Amino acid sequence: MKNKIRVVVSGAGGRMGREVVKLVLQDEELTLAAAVDHSLHDIDAGLLVGLPEAGISVTRDLEAALSAGADVLVDFTIPQSAYSNTAAAIKYGVRPVIGTTGFTPEQIEELDKQCQEQGIGGLIAPNFSIGAILMMKFAAQAAKYFPNLEIIEYHGDQKLDAPSGTAIKTAELIAEAREELRQGNPQEEETIEGARGGYYNGFRIHSVRLPGVFAQQEVVFGSFGQTLKIRHDSYERAGYMPGVKLGIEKVMGYTGIIYGFDHFIE
Amino acid sequence: MKNKIRVVVSGAGGRMGREVVKLVLQDEELTLAAAVDHSLHDIDAGLLVGLPEAGISVTRDLEAALSAGADVLVDFTIPQSAYSNTAAAIKYGVRPVIGTTGFTPEQIEELDKQCQEQGIGGLIAPNFSIGAILMMKFAAQAAKYFPNLEIIEYHGDQKLDAPSGTAIKTAELIAEAREELRQGNPQEEETIEGARGGYYNGFRIHSVRLPGVFAQQEVVFGSFGQTLKIRHDSYERAGYMPGVKLGIEKVMGYTGIIYGFDHFIE
Amino acid sequence: MKNKIRVVVSGAGGRMGREVVKLVLQDEELTLAAAVDHSLHDIDAGLLVGLPEAGISVTRDLEAALSAGADVLVDFTIPQSAYSNTAAAIKYGVRPVIGTTGFTPEQIEELDKQCQEQGIGGLIAPNFSIGAILMMKFAAQAAKYFPNLEIIEYHGDQKLDAPSGTAIKTAELIAEAREELRQGNPQEEETIEGARGGYYNGFRIHSVRLPGVFAQQEVVFGSFGQTLKIRHDSYERAGYMPGVKLGIEKVMGYTGIIYGFDHFIE
Amino acid sequence: MKNKIRVVVSGAGGRMGREVVKLVLQDEELTLAAAVDHSLHDIDAGLLVGLPEAGISVTRDLEAALSAGADVLVDFTIPQSAYSNTAAAIKYGVRPVIGTTGFTPEQIEELDKQCQEQGIGGLIAPNFSIGAILMMKFAAQAAKYFPNLEIIEYHGDQKLDAPSGTAIKTAELIAEAREELRQGNPQEEETIEGARGGYYNGFRIHSVRLPGVFAQQEVVFGSFGQTLKIRHDSYERAGYMPGVKLGIEKVMGYTGIIYGFDHFIE
Repeated sequence: MKNKIRVVVSGAGGRMGREVVKLVLQDEELTLAAAVDHSLHDIDAGLLVGLPEAGISVTRDLEAALSAGADVLVDFTIPQSAYSNTAAAIKYGVRPVIGTTGFTPEQIEELDKQCQEQGIGGLIAPNFSIGAILMMKFAAQAAKYFPNLEIIEYHGDQKLDAPSGTAIKTAELIAEAREELRQGNPQEEETIEGARGGYYNGFRIHSVRLPGVFAQQEVVFGSFGQTLKIRHDSYERAGYMPGVKLGIEKVMGYTGIIYGFDHFIE
Repeated sequence: MKNKIRVVVSGAGGRMGREVVKLVLQDEELTLAAAVDHSLHDIDAGLLVGLPEAGISVTRDLEAALSAGADVLVDFTIPQSAYSNTAAAIKYGVRPVIGTTGFTPEQIEELDKQCQEQGIGGLIAPNFSIGAILMMKFAAQAAKYFPNLEIIEYHGDQKLDAPSGTAIKTAELIAEAREELRQGNPQEEETIEGARGGYYNGFRIHSVRLPGVFAQQEVVFGSFGQTLKIRHDSYERAGYMPGVKLGIEKVMGYTGIIYGFDHFIE
Repeated sequence: MKNKIRVVVSGAGGRMGREVVKLVLQDEELTLAAAVDHSLHDIDAGLLVGLPEAGISVTRDLEAALSAGADVLVDFTIPQSAYSNTAAAIKYGVRPVIGTTGFTPEQIEELDKQCQEQGIGGLIAPNFSIGAILMMKFAAQAAKYFPNLEIIEYHGDQKLDAPSGTAIKTAELIAEAREELRQGNPQEEETIEGARGGYYNGFRIHSVRLPGVFAQQEVVFGSFGQTLKIRHDSYERAGYMPGVKLGIEKVMGYTGIIYGFDHFIE
Repeated sequence: MKNKIRVVVSGAGGRMGREVVKLVLQDEELTLAAAVDHSLHDIDAGLLVGLPEAGISVTRDLEAALSAGADVLVDFTIPQSAYSNTAAAIKYGVRPVIGTTGFTPEQIEELDKQCQEQGIGGLIAPNFSIGAILMMKFAAQAAKYFPNLEIIEYHGDQKLDAPSGTAIKTAELIAEAREELRQGNPQEEETIEGARGGYYNGFRIHSVRLPGVFAQQEVVFGSFGQTLKIRHDSYERAGYMPGVKLGIEKVMGYTGIIYGFDHFIE
């Protein structure tokens, strides 16, 4: 029988942290070693996330949790604490799986060195959505054959920036993959300004903002008598959990830091 | 047994006219009385549209065609000739079903008077798409309950104007139906100009232009935890034919001119 | 200034009840009079639903809550207690808005009589989703003009029954609205049994079951060269809250019991 | 300046052949060497396809057309004549691009030998749709990460077989790529037989049949809190032409027969 992977969750009370706690408590191949959060304590980790009592209280002491024995630390906290949390994990031989952003290249290099010395793996990834990564990969591949395309992305109506980070990342990958092309009719005119969307490298990006939407994106390709559409709809934070799970598994099998989740997707 | 409705098609060689000829030749309740086109003659009407020989040659003489006996004239020609074609039809007691645009209100009133005198019906309609009219109706109705919405329309990449006429018409109907509302986050910022689309009465319109697309439009409504979408995809001109057919049938049953196809859709 | 509507929520700890508590705490036109649940007590109603402390503890005593003064009772509990909860509310002059199912016609009649006597309104509704009701209405309307259609519904992969209740309700409304028609090619053959979906009154229903999906349905209409699609995507229980809110408002303005939420949608 | 590729089209009067003639007349890198059809003659090839006169009459004599000098033969005819047409082309050093089906493995081997001897390339492909091939590739790739999926395909309402050939081909590729899995709830029950679609290797295929639809397919993947959709909509035969064009270009650059268009898509 395979041993369960023992997981420490830091940032357990945050929106992503709660989803990780749920994942670890419900997945048969994982077991919760500890749940850490600076602003909570003495609450049962199961009750915290709407599950039955887990018998493990949320703690404020990350070092104690790490030193008590664990295989993996999953950290969704804040840029200010992510580096020290990661370094602490490595010191105790606990593999870091980090969703917090804000690492400098120098920090990643230093953490890689520490992992190599300890002979353990680590993962730092700004995006754990397997679905979003597949969408971007497929879009870039399709753009080689169908250079005419537009991106339409949908987010909640209170989002501040448009286009979304994922849309811009997708646009960059497409621009690298396809032949250069300025799409559309050069004489085209907007009777309502902005109707044709944002211009990026010859194609257009449209940002829809509506209440009730979490995060959706569609890349539409048009060619003679046909359209090809690649669409990813994300309904809630739980959608990142298959990626976190895959990260936890993968990190058990190599040495050093890997940066970016797309390395795991062929 | 019901008699077939005898139809004269003028503008038979045009893109819409050809579809009407096809419709009339293939529909069991219609029969082709004549096919008229100023730039074609002596071609069999069936062969013209890729069907078996029909035994009726395309003619240039509209008056002769009308005086030979017919129930309905369907006219998709050009603004310059549409008024005189319509008046000629009425003179011979042939009910006009007109898809050509450019009539003035005075002309419509005059033609209505002539129809009343002859005791026949007539229809002048800029849009024969039942599907597009239903989409607009439903969108306006939904906007009463879901005031947050955006319009996304798709047309071929050589189209000159954005947004499309249908999108603007839809937007007007929605603006009349819903409570006033300026959607989205007031602090919102576009990192790529135009990404948020064209602003109309508090909501946004996005115009996608891609090769291979004929005419598509989606109105998306967002509310707590849900979206409602109403989408009409038009793949080719044949999509207007059920509307033309309905117009031909309806015009047999009333007196005077009706302007606008939406009068037939409850 | 308009007075806030004072709402008692019963079944406050259930999945729907928690959403109602959230709604009432966050909506500026509503105020929480009491939160009642038989299996919880002494928990702050705000903390229960992940909001800041509300200063109101969940209680087990519905009668006490009703007698303390309230305008509306919202009840999402179980069939066994819904009738007595409703009757208790009416006794204290509190208007019932009931999402619990299982009422007999006799019970509804009796409760209507009691409401009439008290001079207050009441609502009993098995489905509070405005979006789903609009979808059904539009689908039935469209079927008059586009009699060729299929229904595709999507739910979570652990759902036991197929098709869903909403799909069947939609199918019934369509069957009433459209001319009778057996769609498709009579010589059609399934090389994989069931591929053509479930047969209902001449058209087909397809039930998709996938993890990650809450409740989605699309009705697709096909005609010459076009398709019309009406789609409702429900992402979470919060999607029913605009309907609950509308119910709370409406019930303040009439006398007697209304059964079915569709009465409020023109 | 690059020389134009000289193309002979056989089956020029058929539905696919007409599209090929249009492609060749309109593409700047191609020129029409001859248009061959057994059931037509003496018609101008341009007029045949609704374009201006091309100055080339359709002929019945394929051998004469091939011997007059050409680079590529495109053949969309019937199984009975495709082998001899292909062999004739190779004999005259004209590269065959064949969309006709029905070749035996022995025939393909023999034609490959002949191509090798002549030092020219050839292509035999049952499906020229780049979009459909990309959809299938992406679906198989995604199934490795998202093993829960269903296929929904849409075709015209007179189609005889369900599911479509493309759906079955997609299902086979997915079954090879993903881990074995019987999806859904084992206790699931159909209240309308067939609602859950056709069973294939643990997942379901749904075939929608509606007038106005040419050929569309969507593969939907579901996972925690998300769906990924890959959709290809084909609106008309012209949609195969980018594939035919790519085939014509590719065949100029290698020796021997390639079977299957997917070899050109990385």
